[in-house]
Amino acid sequence: MKKLSLLTSGLALCVATAAYANDDLVKQMSDPAQWAIQTGDYENQRYSELDQINTGNVDDLQVAWTFSTGVLRGHEGSPLVVGDTMYVHTPFPNIVYALDLADEGKIKWRYEPKQDPDVIPVMCCDTVNRGVAYADGKIFLHQADTKVVALDSETGEVLWEAVNGDPSIGETNTATVLPVKDKVIVGISGGEFGVRGHVTAYNMETGEQEWRAYSMGPDSDILMDPENTTHLGKPVGPDSGINTWEGDQWMIGGGTTWGWYAVDMEENLVYYGTGNPSTWNPAQRPGDNRWSMTIMARDIDTGMAKWVYQMTPHDEWDYDGVNEMILTDQEVDGEMRKLLTHFDRNGLGYTLDRVSGELMVAEKFDPVVNWTTGVDMDPESDTYGRPAVVAEYSTEYNGEDVNSTGICPAALGSKDQQPAAYSPRTETFYVPTNHVCMDYEPFRVAYTAGQPYVGATLAMYPAPDSHGGMGNFIAWDNLKGEIKWSIPEQFSVWSGALATAGDVVFYGTLEGYLKAVDANTGEELYKFKTPSGIIGNVMTYEHDGKQYVGVLSGVGGWAGIGLAAGLTNPNDGLGAVGGYSALSDYTALGGQLTVFALPD
Amino acid sequence: MKKLSLLTSGLALCVATAAYANDDLVKQMSDPAQWAIQTGDYENQRYSELDQINTGNVDDLQVAWTFSTGVLRGHEGSPLVVGDTMYVHTPFPNIVYALDLADEGKIKWRYEPKQDPDVIPVMCCDTVNRGVAYADGKIFLHQADTKVVALDSETGEVLWEAVNGDPSIGETNTATVLPVKDKVIVGISGGEFGVRGHVTAYNMETGEQEWRAYSMGPDSDILMDPENTTHLGKPVGPDSGINTWEGDQWMIGGGTTWGWYAVDMEENLVYYGTGNPSTWNPAQRPGDNRWSMTIMARDIDTGMAKWVYQMTPHDEWDYDGVNEMILTDQEVDGEMRKLLTHFDRNGLGYTLDRVSGELMVAEKFDPVVNWTTGVDMDPESDTYGRPAVVAEYSTEYNGEDVNSTGICPAALGSKDQQPAAYSPRTETFYVPTNHVCMDYEPFRVAYTAGQPYVGATLAMYPAPDSHGGMGNFIAWDNLKGEIKWSIPEQFSVWSGALATAGDVVFYGTLEGYLKAVDANTGEELYKFKTPSGIIGNVMTYEHDGKQYVGVLSGVGGWAGIGLAAGLTNPNDGLGAVGGYSALSDYTALGGQLTVFALPD
Ligand SMILES: O=C(O)c1cc(C(=O)O)c2c(n1)C(=O)C(=O)c1cc(C(=O)O)[nH]c1-2
Ligand SMILES: O=C(O)c1cc(C(=O)O)c2c(n1)C(=O)C(=O)c1cc(C(=O)O)[nH]c1-2
Repeated sequence: MKKLSLLTSGLALCVATAAYANDDLVKQMSDPAQWAIQTGDYENQRYSELDQINTGNVDDLQVAWTFSTGVLRGHEGSPLVVGDTMYVHTPFPNIVYALDLADEGKIKWRYEPKQDPDVIPVMCCDTVNRGVAYADGKIFLHQADTKVVALDSETGEVLWEAVNGDPSIGETNTATVLPVKDKVIVGISGGEFGVRGHVTAYNMETGEQEWRAYSMGPDSDILMDPENTTHLGKPVGPDSGINTWEGDQWMIGGGTTWGWYAVDMEENLVYYGTGNPSTWNPAQRPGDNRWSMTIMARDIDTGMAKWVYQMTPHDEWDYDGVNEMILTDQEVDGEMRKLLTHFDRNGLGYTLDRVSGELMVAEKFDPVVNWTTGVDMDPESDTYGRPAVVAEYSTEYNGEDVNSTGICPAALGSKDQQPAAYSPRTETFYVPTNHVCMDYEPFRVAYTAGQPYVGATLAMYPAPDSHGGMGNFIAWDNLKGEIKWSIPEQFSVWSGALATAGDVVFYGTLEGYLKAVDANTGEELYKFKTPSGIIGNVMTYEHDGKQYVGVLSGVGGWAGIGLAAGLTNPNDGLGAVGGYSALSDYTALGGQLTVFALPD
Repeated sequence: MKKLSLLTSGLALCVATAAYANDDLVKQMSDPAQWAIQTGDYENQRYSELDQINTGNVDDLQVAWTFSTGVLRGHEGSPLVVGDTMYVHTPFPNIVYALDLADEGKIKWRYEPKQDPDVIPVMCCDTVNRGVAYADGKIFLHQADTKVVALDSETGEVLWEAVNGDPSIGETNTATVLPVKDKVIVGISGGEFGVRGHVTAYNMETGEQEWRAYSMGPDSDILMDPENTTHLGKPVGPDSGINTWEGDQWMIGGGTTWGWYAVDMEENLVYYGTGNPSTWNPAQRPGDNRWSMTIMARDIDTGMAKWVYQMTPHDEWDYDGVNEMILTDQEVDGEMRKLLTHFDRNGLGYTLDRVSGELMVAEKFDPVVNWTTGVDMDPESDTYGRPAVVAEYSTEYNGEDVNSTGICPAALGSKDQQPAAYSPRTETFYVPTNHVCMDYEPFRVAYTAGQPYVGATLAMYPAPDSHGGMGNFIAWDNLKGEIKWSIPEQFSVWSGALATAGDVVFYGTLEGYLKAVDANTGEELYKFKTPSGIIGNVMTYEHDGKQYVGVLSGVGGWAGIGLAAGLTNPNDGLGAVGGYSALSDYTALGGQLTVFALPD
C-alpha cells in the first residue's frame, strides 16, 4: 500500500509539470469527492477512497433523492459529479442533464440532440449509451448517431461537434469517450453490421481529428509498425491486419471498439479491446482475423500500437474482446509490476504486463466455461497464447447450418460490458458476470451495407447443472487466476461494480436491486429495490461532507433487450430474448437515478 | 368523534345485511390496512386510521421500495392494496400491474390492453388515468378508449368488457370507476370536443349497461323528474336540460363527467359533478346551460336525480364542476348533519346538506378569486345560489375576440381534479390548490365531430401581487368557509392529499417532492424528491404490521402538459404551457411508484 501511493503521487507530479488540457481532469480524478469520467479513473479501477459508508453502517443506507431521466430503455453508464454539478445522460436520444447539487438537484441545463431515429434499428443491443466524460471545463458526449459533441460544462453550450461515423453503413455509438491529454478518444459500434472497427482521437479544444486506428486492414490503417508493434513479445510483421483474412473480408471485418478505455499516462499508452470479427458465421472468414478480439496498447499521441494480444483468434462465438482493461500496480514475486487485468467475454480472466504485453495469467473465471480447455502458456510453443478449442463446441468445426449446443458461455460471454471493480485494499477484483450457455447455428449471410450481418441463430439459457441462475458476482485473484468467492444471482449481473475504502462493494441486478456486499467475504450487507432493472454502473461522490452512492436504473442492454424493445420471440434480440424472459416478472422499463446516503 | 364512529358502524351494519356484490369492497374500505378504491372510501375523505407514521416520527421516513411503470407522461391516481397485492396502473396505454407484496413486489400479472393510439390526440389534458378500482374479486379499469374492463384480481384474466363511448366523436376516459352495490359507475371525457356528458352504470357481474344519465337533453336522457328532482329545494321543472340552451346546442353541450364519485349507501345516492358546457366561447351558447357545472345526487339503482345544484350557470371560464364531493358527518348548530363539501374549479368552497341539497356555505378558498363577488345565499332571492359575476372578468360581457385579462382563477381553477383530504380528528379539509390567473379570448368555432371544439385562446400565469408561486396547500374549515392555514408552493399542487390518524397530511408537488405536514399547524415535517413531478394521489396501507405511504410520480396532467406532450408554445396545451414552463428546470418525465416507511 505504501509503495502504491508513492507510485501514484509520482504520476500526478509528472502530469502536473507537463501541463496538458486534461490536468483539470487528473485533479478531479484524484479527488475522491468527484466522479469525473465514467470509469472513475484512468485505471478503470472503479475504486473510491471514500469510506464514510462502510461495512459497519452500510445497512443504514437510505435513498437520499431520485431523478427520472424522462427516457425509457436501457440506462448504462453512470452520472458524473464535478464540483457542485452532477451530469446525467440517457440512452437514445442521449439527453444530458446538469443537476445543481447545491440547489436540490435543480436542472442547470439540459442538452437534447436532434437525432434521426433511423439509428435505432442499427443498434444491435439496445439504444444504450455508456455516458459522458468531463475534462477541461467540457462535457463530452458521443451520440448514438456517432456525432461527438463538446458541451460547455457550465452552460451546456455546444463548443464543437465532430462526425465519427456513418449510421447508414451501420456505424453507431454506445460507448463513453476518453479525454486524455489534449485529445478525446472514441470508438465505434456495428460489429453486427459488418462495420470495420476504428478508434479515433479528436482534438479536445477544436474537435479536429488527430488520428484513427482501424482494427484490421493495411498497416497504415491499423497504425502498426511491423517491426516494433509486438504480439506476445514478437513483432506483428507486415500486413497482419490483411493476411489473416481471406480476400477483402477485412473490409467488413468487425472488431468494433465499443468498450472501455484505460490510460497509463506514464507509459503514454491507451488500452482497449476490439470486438468480434464479422460475420458470426466463422466459415465465411477463414484465418485468425487479426486484430479482432484483441487487447490494444496504443501511443496516446500518435495512435501507433506498442503491443497487442489477440485473445480469441478466429472467433466462433461472438466473444467480443471489448471489456475493460483494469490497470493495477501489484507486487509479483517480490517485484512491483504494472499489470492489466481483463475479464473477457470468452470466460477467461487475463493478467498481462501492461508495459510489455507479456501474458501472465489466463484462467476461467466461471468454471462452466467449456469451449476451451485453456490457454497455452508456454512461450516456446507454436500455439503460445492461444486458447485450445474443444471440437464439440467449435461452431466452425461443426459447420454451417449445424446447431452446436451447450456452449458455455453464451455469446454475451461470462462477462459483457458491465465493468468490474478493483480494491487496492483487498487486492481483489469484483466482477459482475453472466452464467449463461447457448446453442449456436451459423449460416451463410450476404453483406448489404447498413443491414444486419449476423449469420447465426442463437438460443440462450442458464448454465445447466449449476445453481439455476444466470449470473454470479465474483471476487477474483488476478495473480493466482482464482475465484475467491462467488454470489449466485438469478439473472446476469449487467451492472458495473464499485469498490470503496469502506470495504464495501456495490453492484446492481437486473431485477433492480442495488446490493452492497463485504469486500472481504461477499456477505450481503444491504439491498434496495430501485424502480427498474439496473444495467448502470454504481458510482460514489461526496458533497458537503457527505458520501453518496448513485446508480441509474432502466432495464435493457443485450440481456434486457426483450423488455427494452418489446420482443418476445425467444430467438430474437440475437438470441437473448428467451433466456431472460422471466425478467418481466420482476421489473418494467425505466430510466431513473437513485442516490443513496446514510441518515443525517 | 364518538357519535361519528357510531354512525359509521351503523352504516357498515346496514350494508352487511343487504348482501351486495360490493360487500367485500365495503369490508376492505373499512380496514385501514387496505386501499381498495382510488378515493380510499366512498366518502372521498382520503383519510386513514393508520397512525404508525405520525407527527413525532414522520421525519424518519425512508424510501422502502420503488417501481417503474414503464410508461412516461402524467401519472394520476394511486396504487391500490388489497390483501397481499398492490395494483398499479399507468396512463395510456393503461397497463395494470399486480405486485406481490409478500414477495418483494414481484409482478404477479400484468394486463396491457391494445388501444388505438389515435385516442391520444383526442385527450384534452394529457393521457392520464385516475386509476383502477377493486370490488368483488375484480379489478375494474376504464381505458382511454372508453373500454371498461373487469379483470380477475388474482390472475388478471379479462372477465368482461364494455364499450362506454366512441373516441371518433371525442369520447375518451381518464377517470376511475366507482364500484357500488351490484354496479360499476363510470363517466366520460371530451368537453373540449363537444361531447355530451353522461354517467353510466354497468352490472358488476356481467358488464351489461343498467342505466345512463346524460348531463343535458330531454328529461328521459338526464334521468330527472321535473317534480321530484330538486335544485336548491325547488323542482327542476320539465325539460330543464333543453330549455336552458339555444336550439340543439345541448347535443354537443359538454358537461362531461371525468371527476370523482362519492357514495352514501344509507341514502342510496351517488354524487359527482359535471364539466364545462361546450364550447368555451360563451356567446355560442346562450342560457344557463343546465346541467353543466352541476353537483348531482343520483339514486344508485336507477340513476334518477334526487337533487342537483348548478354552481356556475352559463360558464364563461371553463370552470368544470367535476372536482370531488367529500362526504362528512359533522355537528352544525348542535345537530349532526350529513354534509357534502366541494372545492370547485371556480374558486368557491361549497358545503351542502347531502340529503336535501341545501346550500350551506359558498366561500372563496383562494382570496385572489375575482370573477365573482360571491354567491347569493338568500333563499328568498331570485338569484339564490348564483354567483355574482364581475363584468370586467366576464368573457361573455367583454365579447368574442376580446381578450379578457387578469381573470382569477385560470381555467384550470383554484383547484382541478387533484383531490383534497379530510381528517375527522381535526375536522379540517386539506386542499391542494392552484394560484393561477389568466387571459381569455373567446372566438367563434364550428363543430366537427372528433375535432377540438374549444373556442378560446388562453394564457396563464401566477396570481399577480401574491407570493409569486402558482399554488398553495391549504387547510379549510367547511363550516365557517375559512382558510385555517396556507402553504405557498412554487407550482400548483396537482397531487391528491392524504390525511392520517397520525395527524400527518401528505401531498406531492409538481417538482416531485412528497411532503408531509402537521395536520394542525401545516408545519413541514418531511420532504423527499421523487424521480418526477407528482400529480398522483398519496395513499397509505399496512403490510405485515408496517405502515407504508405510496405515491406515483410522473409529471403531466393539464398543468404539466408542456413537459408531457413536448409543447413549448406558451398558448399551447389550452393555454397552460407558458405558465408552467419553469417546471422543466425541476423535473423530467417519469412513471414511478415510490413507497415510504419508517426504518425497522
Ligand atoms: O459488435 C458490436 O459493435 C457491438 C456493439 C454493442 C454495443 O454497441 O452496445 C454490443 C455488442 N457488439 C455486443 O456484442 C454485446 O454483447 C453488447 C452488449 C451490449 C450492451 O450494452 O448490453 N452492447 C453490445
Ligand atoms: O371537459 C372534459 O371532458 C375534460 C376532461 C379532462 C380529462 O379527462 O382529463 C380534463 C378537463 N376537461 C379539464 O377541464 C381539466 O382541467 C383537466 C385537467 C386534467 C388533468 O388530468 O390534469 N384533466 C382535465
